[in-house]
Amino acid sequence: MSVIPFSTFPNTRHTVRDLATTEGVVISPQFRNDSQQKKVATAVIYCEGNFGGIDGKTANGLVRHSEKYEILSVIDSEKAGLDTGLVLGEEPNTIPIRSDLADALTHVDSIPDYYIFGMAPASGMLSSHERGLVLEAMDLGMNVVNGLHEFLNDDPVFAASVVSNNVEILDVRKPRAKKDLRMFSGRIADVTCPRIAVLGTDCAIGKRTTATILTHALNEHGVKTVMVGTGQTGLIQGARHGIALDAIPSQFCSGEMEAAIVEAFEEENPDVIIIEGQGALSHPAFSTSSFILRGSCPDGVVLQHAPGRPHRCDFEQMAMPTPSAEINLIETFADTKVIGLTINHENMTDAEVDASISQYERELGIPTTDALTRSPDALVEMVLSAFPEIEEKLTANAR
Amino acid sequence: MSVIPFSTFPNTRHTVRDLATTEGVVISPQFRNDSQQKKVATAVIYCEGNFGGIDGKTANGLVRHSEKYEILSVIDSEKAGLDTGLVLGEEPNTIPIRSDLADALTHVDSIPDYYIFGMAPASGMLSSHERGLVLEAMDLGMNVVNGLHEFLNDDPVFAASVVSNNVEILDVRKPRAKKDLRMFSGRIADVTCPRIAVLGTDCAIGKRTTATILTHALNEHGVKTVMVGTGQTGLIQGARHGIALDAIPSQFCSGEMEAAIVEAFEEENPDVIIIEGQGALSHPAFSTSSFILRGSCPDGVVLQHAPGRPHRCDFEQMAMPTPSAEINLIETFADTKVIGLTINHENMTDAEVDASISQYERELGIPTTDALTRSPDALVEMVLSAFPEIEEKLTANAR
Repeated sequence: MSVIPFSTFPNTRHTVRDLATTEGVVISPQFRNDSQQKKVATAVIYCEGNFGGIDGKTANGLVRHSEKYEILSVIDSEKAGLDTGLVLGEEPNTIPIRSDLADALTHVDSIPDYYIFGMAPASGMLSSHERGLVLEAMDLGMNVVNGLHEFLNDDPVFAASVVSNNVEILDVRKPRAKKDLRMFSGRIADVTCPRIAVLGTDCAIGKRTTATILTHALNEHGVKTVMVGTGQTGLIQGARHGIALDAIPSQFCSGEMEAAIVEAFEEENPDVIIIEGQGALSHPAFSTSSFILRGSCPDGVVLQHAPGRPHRCDFEQMAMPTPSAEINLIETFADTKVIGLTINHENMTDAEVDASISQYERELGIPTTDALTRSPDALVEMVLSAFPEIEEKLTANAR
Repeated sequence: MSVIPFSTFPNTRHTVRDLATTEGVVISPQFRNDSQQKKVATAVIYCEGNFGGIDGKTANGLVRHSEKYEILSVIDSEKAGLDTGLVLGEEPNTIPIRSDLADALTHVDSIPDYYIFGMAPASGMLSSHERGLVLEAMDLGMNVVNGLHEFLNDDPVFAASVVSNNVEILDVRKPRAKKDLRMFSGRIADVTCPRIAVLGTDCAIGKRTTATILTHALNEHGVKTVMVGTGQTGLIQGARHGIALDAIPSQFCSGEMEAAIVEAFEEENPDVIIIEGQGALSHPAFSTSSFILRGSCPDGVVLQHAPGRPHRCDFEQMAMPTPSAEINLIETFADTKVIGLTINHENMTDAEVDASISQYERELGIPTTDALTRSPDALVEMVLSAFPEIEEKLTANAR
């Protein structure tokens, strides 16, 4: 089982949840980051047998960062009683793991607002057993957040349960209606700020995490940066801009990607747009990165790699690509430049990470860092050295 | 408007239609290529304003080749009265163009079995006017073949019309149910015969046509060859193996591609599998070729190119890629080899085609031909020289 430690995650946006769960204080409006100033909804996450693992990546992401939901607990009987932060190899975060929903409910005063199905199996479907568990949560009056490829609102049994229990199901991956799906138009040429895609050499390798930290670091540095998500986890976390790319019919993928970026640009007028990658361009099963490159036409790419990963995460017979091969592929496929490498340090000691950073900087001639364990300044410097016009704009604005 | 002349298309499979429409003879069972020996259904194709053009490619393909339907006429008021073969720049084929459905019906003895919506707009949606036309055909008792991204069976108005008129709608592009969609598994490694993908430098450039001619030519040469389709037109034409790749959620595209090839291999035990390409790997809007390469892992690629095409067909501001750039992209993206170039001779004289063939053979060092106007032997030779083991197997079997 691989985990992605997250000890240096910038968790300022956790303020509401931390206050509410650890100190029991009344939530003060100024702490809320929901622009509607609505009460933050409470949620438990179902992640049986998978918390901390690759198929648990939705749950792993949500306990680290959630703008929409206050996460009360995670359900995984194999790790019941443990702290989710510690399981991820990070600081304790006071979100406990419970053995089942009944156990989770004994520790809260009222029924949580949402039951989040927090696993992301490759098939994207619920098993019969899991169907029963979700229906049980609905019978208890909980709304459901579903990030699977299977859309529960389209299932007569779940649709009936929605009505009889007066709850809702959010099918996060469901694309907009066919008639509203957008084709690639070339409007991406109107987006005048630099666009940087965070791609990877494998799936579940930390692209979203690095993209999130990079976005935060640039904003802290005074560079207005917006992240556009491409996966279900980011959407559940509360990303304002994004699409669940892998659920979109392929004809519309590059157009939907382009449109999400144009919208982010027009609505936020940022200095930089960061685009979350998916899978790997070289991956036989998860290669939607092709649409990310075509739709976003990025000016630069940051490549996430795990030197200690022995083989592709779902395919034991497939060797990991080298960063150099992936860079060559990306730069041949698209008119872009890989501006830096970021390391996922799974299965590595800190000394090995250091050695790896030096080795790749020498071998590839691009800045290399580990977003989680090294200073965010390295990420900022990676972007500013590739795009000096950003620094110039900052300086001009400061005058 | 660009058309793809098709004068040398091997039309032996047109026998049933030609007999039935031009000579009025009773169809003899031995001429039927439908393995079920069912009566071939009659059909009219709606293609208003687009027959012969790029968005009319479904209609263009069907008047050239159709195993499932006897095409009675094409509806396009701008070309009413003309012969569809002549409009395509080919031999007359006795399938006339009519101004509207009423006009089409005055020339037949009974209501045709099917109304085929024969346009393929990029949006994949029906306009309000077109909705009315399709419903009118249903009210007349015609079944509908729909190759659009919009699935009419999911529309309450069309669903009601299906019931009240006791007809059916075939939503050709509709993928299988989510739970039955297949992920890439690596089973493609069990397919032991050579796989050759016919890719292109643009969309609507003749990939399907070249793939069809190549498949026929190899079979004529004694090499058992099966074609796997990837677009709606091939499925409407009656391809036994294939998927409508651009309508599949991107997560499942390479897996569905792989599965279609594994099935074709297991069911037919061919010597060679030919895979129809889509768009162009370099195309920002139509790059599902990435999944074709990932899912089929082709041993060889034939690249279709139109030297006389001034820009990408839907994007006037986009130059066409050179064959050499596309070949480099394909061979970097996948572990394969481009074994030959095929020319689409639109906007070219015969002498220009000759010059182009010589030039590309010299420049690229690979066999080059025009599938439509040059001998099919050139295509056979292209494959046999790249895969000498096929000839060896033929020789061994002949002993």
